[in-house]
Amino acid sequence: MTSDIYTVDLNCDMGESYGAFTMGSDEIILPFVTSANIACGFHAGDPAVMKKTVRQAIAKGVVIGAHPGLPDLQGFGRREMAVSPEEAYDLVVYQIGALAAFVKSEGGILHHVKPHGALYNMAAVNRELAAAIAEAVYKVEPGLILYGLSGSELIAEGAKAGLKVANEVFADRAYQQDGRLTSRKLADAMVTDDLLAISRVLRMVKEGKVKSQQGVDIDITVDTICIHGDGKHAVLFAEKIYTAFKKEGIAMHSPA
Amino acid sequence: MTSDIYTVDLNCDMGESYGAFTMGSDEIILPFVTSANIACGFHAGDPAVMKKTVRQAIAKGVVIGAHPGLPDLQGFGRREMAVSPEEAYDLVVYQIGALAAFVKSEGGILHHVKPHGALYNMAAVNRELAAAIAEAVYKVEPGLILYGLSGSELIAEGAKAGLKVANEVFADRAYQQDGRLTSRKLADAMVTDDLLAISRVLRMVKEGKVKSQQGVDIDITVDTICIHGDGKHAVLFAEKIYTAFKKEGIAMHSPA
Amino acid sequence: MTSDIYTVDLNCDMGESYGAFTMGSDEIILPFVTSANIACGFHAGDPAVMKKTVRQAIAKGVVIGAHPGLPDLQGFGRREMAVSPEEAYDLVVYQIGALAAFVKSEGGILHHVKPHGALYNMAAVNRELAAAIAEAVYKVEPGLILYGLSGSELIAEGAKAGLKVANEVFADRAYQQDGRLTSRKLADAMVTDDLLAISRVLRMVKEGKVKSQQGVDIDITVDTICIHGDGKHAVLFAEKIYTAFKKEGIAMHSPA
Amino acid sequence: MTSDIYTVDLNCDMGESYGAFTMGSDEIILPFVTSANIACGFHAGDPAVMKKTVRQAIAKGVVIGAHPGLPDLQGFGRREMAVSPEEAYDLVVYQIGALAAFVKSEGGILHHVKPHGALYNMAAVNRELAAAIAEAVYKVEPGLILYGLSGSELIAEGAKAGLKVANEVFADRAYQQDGRLTSRKLADAMVTDDLLAISRVLRMVKEGKVKSQQGVDIDITVDTICIHGDGKHAVLFAEKIYTAFKKEGIAMHSPA
Repeated sequence: MTSDIYTVDLNCDMGESYGAFTMGSDEIILPFVTSANIACGFHAGDPAVMKKTVRQAIAKGVVIGAHPGLPDLQGFGRREMAVSPEEAYDLVVYQIGALAAFVKSEGGILHHVKPHGALYNMAAVNRELAAAIAEAVYKVEPGLILYGLSGSELIAEGAKAGLKVANEVFADRAYQQDGRLTSRKLADAMVTDDLLAISRVLRMVKEGKVKSQQGVDIDITVDTICIHGDGKHAVLFAEKIYTAFKKEGIAMHSPA
Repeated sequence: MTSDIYTVDLNCDMGESYGAFTMGSDEIILPFVTSANIACGFHAGDPAVMKKTVRQAIAKGVVIGAHPGLPDLQGFGRREMAVSPEEAYDLVVYQIGALAAFVKSEGGILHHVKPHGALYNMAAVNRELAAAIAEAVYKVEPGLILYGLSGSELIAEGAKAGLKVANEVFADRAYQQDGRLTSRKLADAMVTDDLLAISRVLRMVKEGKVKSQQGVDIDITVDTICIHGDGKHAVLFAEKIYTAFKKEGIAMHSPA
Repeated sequence: MTSDIYTVDLNCDMGESYGAFTMGSDEIILPFVTSANIACGFHAGDPAVMKKTVRQAIAKGVVIGAHPGLPDLQGFGRREMAVSPEEAYDLVVYQIGALAAFVKSEGGILHHVKPHGALYNMAAVNRELAAAIAEAVYKVEPGLILYGLSGSELIAEGAKAGLKVANEVFADRAYQQDGRLTSRKLADAMVTDDLLAISRVLRMVKEGKVKSQQGVDIDITVDTICIHGDGKHAVLFAEKIYTAFKKEGIAMHSPA
Repeated sequence: MTSDIYTVDLNCDMGESYGAFTMGSDEIILPFVTSANIACGFHAGDPAVMKKTVRQAIAKGVVIGAHPGLPDLQGFGRREMAVSPEEAYDLVVYQIGALAAFVKSEGGILHHVKPHGALYNMAAVNRELAAAIAEAVYKVEPGLILYGLSGSELIAEGAKAGLKVANEVFADRAYQQDGRLTSRKLADAMVTDDLLAISRVLRMVKEGKVKSQQGVDIDITVDTICIHGDGKHAVLFAEKIYTAFKKEGIAMHSPA
């Protein structure tokens, strides 16, 4: 019997198909996660996909978050755009609302918001953008939890705005000494060895520490772990991390 | 002193600008209407425009409705598309939600839903589509009032779904003997004489009758009158009809 | 040694991926076809996909056609839209031009135009729309060949406009006595048995006849056969039909 | 009688309406310009608008250029996006091709390419992006003239690629000592006095010099002057500058 002294959330981006275009393996990965971030139509997702994904998440008892992105379907929301803080506010309000309507109409409750892609990355380092996004979430529903990069501006501005926040870490990414993710443009940005990735994330959860690329241990807060949802390896890794956590007696559930 | 034995709503489509593109005269027409249908980003409107228009309506005390359209910005939602009832359901849920988030974040209350353009026209005659739209509105919020063409399938299906409905008439359009609007492709579809238009609409409100193009009086239910918002003449006409109603002691307010 | 008394083109829709979204198996199916219809960004395809697909087709020596669709990415161009003939003209000119630029910049020559999805279906039966599309093709480049449903209005209007035309048939679809395709909404619209499909198409090529769903033989002109490009079965079927034609001594090349 | 020793082009962005949304005063401003940059559907313009604007330009004898922008209709192509050089190449090829088809089908000849908004600004300072755009233009048609900010990377890369180039200046903008435009975010970025603006531009044309905001004269090459097309003042200013040039004996025609 485990004592559940450690608790963590496993979140996954979902509902990123669009019309006739399929993306991700939502059904297969749902059993291994505790929260689902559902795309809202700007970088991916369409109304039909949103409804379907909301239904799937509710059926599996996985909490639902809005996953708003930049208005760039072709770039999948991954290309930075010079949106002003006010524009970011507006597009976050819009997308949360759109998803919330499906959640409500399907009998669920919207639980959190996690910005997507370039919007997430920009909000991690740009204080004004982070504050605008936090305000958008708060104004729509102050009980929503804001997911952001662990230790980022988004987390700081979310807390300042009065929101509960969830610090997110990545099992498969290298960290810099200053706590930032190593850019994917650099070598060794990814932790490709599954066992190493799992041992790193276990240490993050238990000790609150991770070894940076500079070889120095850094402190890191872990409320939620990003589980990728696309590709065969993603599903395998999700199952591995889920199984490892079970075995280690780490409780997996969404932030309260 | 008037006795207010007659009551009617004056509604206007608003928030139909998009980015750098300006459409309509929202600020100028707001004093003459009692309910605003705000575009939700599919046929017109964008998140910034939606927020601004919601603020304007709240400031003027005009009730706010969602004005969902087909996903056809280039065609302004006026080209019929073969959307299935389920697709119509999905896009109505999505758009109501998006607007509702702005209304909530600005401290207002969403009051009604009026489909736009081709979606409105299709829902007037296509029972399955009408039922899907009514269900979408009800599932998102059963207290919302559904605006539709007076006597149409949308009104019938809205009532059947358990929604309050508002029968809409057009002051500037000719009616057929069967109660339908004369197609704009036909001659004499428009009532271009303002005085005639106002006398017709006054009679609709007071007597529940209008003379059809075939010369026969038909029964017509009037809960709300569509006021166009684009162009100089539209503003002048809005003021004329507003003034005429004042003078005739017809109370103007939104459906409860 | 075969005498090549019969000649037919095998065409396939390609380049229908979009951004991060993958569609089709272009690389795998290219060896089995003689002409490629490349999506132009409205129903599918984006500039990067178009360039890549043009390069692949040129590398394989497969002739290239523009595959313009309705402006409905979410519906993959499969939902009918009430576009006017002039709107159809405009969107066909635009899309041919966009693809032609990639073909030219990659050193190829644009060979044909085949409308996609709902635009194809509408143009098969709507004479005005067909005439507008034919005029668009002719105005951009009178040497382009227009592919359309065998015996359809598009073929008739293309010929009338002065274009060379290619009558297209479907190996996997049932035909009505009047020569139209059986609607996919009806039972038995699809010929699911590969051997039957191949024997039917062989007969179409050799005898110019096909048995309609009503059991009566009808005349049918075959210049080109549509090969589907999506899914495992599609690739297998492409190879089967290609092999069968080889064996029967039917020459496969694009219309001159 | 004037000797026409000075020659300059007056160019204006056009065809920036979209569907039901009107932008600009194309018809009114055409008599005062010698080249038209026509939007290609990404930041503004749609196929119908493109055809109409091409017709207007041909009717007035004004040469036609493609005016490709970033895929951001809502932001009117004014928001910088992190597009890679290859993505820039692709979207420029696409948009030139789309416009070229209308020019050809209307019996005209495409004359030049001028990137729009954020793409123009990024290409002025980012050498890789500039090189990619220049290559795109060259690959589609090496005879096209590339318009870019006077003295910018785009001009340098265009020349390097083998294209003719046209150095563009702005009558209503302040210049920095290093030859760059003063950012619109700074005070005094705009020259709001028409007479001053005209005298500055006359000096640029005749002496190849302009006084920078730092008070120092800088060298500037002028092949073409940007004339704004939106708003009443724009039209008045276009007429003023046109009239001033006539009076000064400066020949106005497009670059050969």
